[in-house]
Amino acid sequence: MFITFEGIEGSGKSTQCARLKARLDQVGQQPVLLTREPGGSALGKDLRAILLDPARTAICSQAELFLYLADRAQHVQEIIAPALKNGRLVIADRFCDSTLAYQGYGRGLDPGVLKQLNAFAVQGLHPDLTVLIDLPAEIGLARAMARNQENRRSADEGRFEAEALDFHQRVRRGFLELAAREPERFHTVDGTGDRDEVFQALCEKLRPVLPGLNDPAGPP
Amino acid sequence: MFITFEGIEGSGKSTQCARLKARLDQVGQQPVLLTREPGGSALGKDLRAILLDPARTAICSQAELFLYLADRAQHVQEIIAPALKNGRLVIADRFCDSTLAYQGYGRGLDPGVLKQLNAFAVQGLHPDLTVLIDLPAEIGLARAMARNQENRRSADEGRFEAEALDFHQRVRRGFLELAAREPERFHTVDGTGDRDEVFQALCEKLRPVLPGLNDPAGPP
Repeated sequence: MFITFEGIEGSGKSTQCARLKARLDQVGQQPVLLTREPGGSALGKDLRAILLDPARTAICSQAELFLYLADRAQHVQEIIAPALKNGRLVIADRFCDSTLAYQGYGRGLDPGVLKQLNAFAVQGLHPDLTVLIDLPAEIGLARAMARNQENRRSADEGRFEAEALDFHQRVRRGFLELAAREPERFHTVDGTGDRDEVFQALCEKLRPVLPGLNDPAGPP
Repeated sequence: MFITFEGIEGSGKSTQCARLKARLDQVGQQPVLLTREPGGSALGKDLRAILLDPARTAICSQAELFLYLADRAQHVQEIIAPALKNGRLVIADRFCDSTLAYQGYGRGLDPGVLKQLNAFAVQGLHPDLTVLIDLPAEIGLARAMARNQENRRSADEGRFEAEALDFHQRVRRGFLELAAREPERFHTVDGTGDRDEVFQALCEKLRPVLPGLNDPAGPP
């Protein structure tokens, strides 16, 4: 099973991905791989450093898109597809929908072209289930800024956080529209609560499809 | 005017590009920009280091393609298009045809997809004239190896030179087929002679279209 997490900056995706992995590890039904984009492969780590560097203001939209696609193609072939083949459950922090939301709704690139390019990059691999953690862009950005001040390790995520609020509002709207178009794949969770509330809502949504989450004892 | 140079490893393109620029600078009719792919922009320099690193044997064909396209999109928008707009003659050492020859004929990726992706990367910019320096792959590879032994600065070009001979033979055949399909744009020059002979042949081919080459006194 291949699960992806999507959401705007500061939505808490990465935290919730890690909690879901921890819970599934606890249950122990299946080995779980938690990975992310950009940066899931060795090549991807170098591309992540380029893509999220706030000093790289000159990267054009097309080049940005191709770098994400290079990261994704390598991620699928080197990491995700072999892990699934070996019977692991894979959780990815961002995947194809981020390209449609950020480069399509955010940057204004043609969504038809983006879909074709995604298809070429993933060579037929699609998520079985996608969690969208949704919250207003103002709240997400405020959280991302606060996190960056507290924690220098996240400061490399600055290139997108430096975009204006309306960019993030378009990206959020993009994610919501994508979710509305594929209600079977998308599970949208309200991300405005605290970490425990969001995780509990997430587990409730996923319980019917992930039997490993049957334990209702709350977050680990 | 936008001129591109194409050819296999060890064809002498880079040498001939530099000589053509020197000759045109001497004639002084128009400012000339000599640039290259990958690596024409600041982003491109980082991508070049990744793409030509012989230790990166794990890069998959799709990721490799997308990295070249990212380099090209940025190169066109940041370097080539502004230079042309400012009245410069631009000479590029490799451009779209290299993608068709290396990733298409060499790696076996779908040529129709490659053409679409090139078109998306260059946003309507096409070379006015392309010089193909042609020679047998065995000779090109032997020259490239000898150059790398002499000159450590070129050793970063090793990832492609490490490919088997039949890869380079397919790439050469690819360039020749592309040239046969567009005889008006392509000017194919025999690259088996020494540097002076090749440059003289090149100048003879280009003289009708580049009035700056009217001086028949030989190489500078």
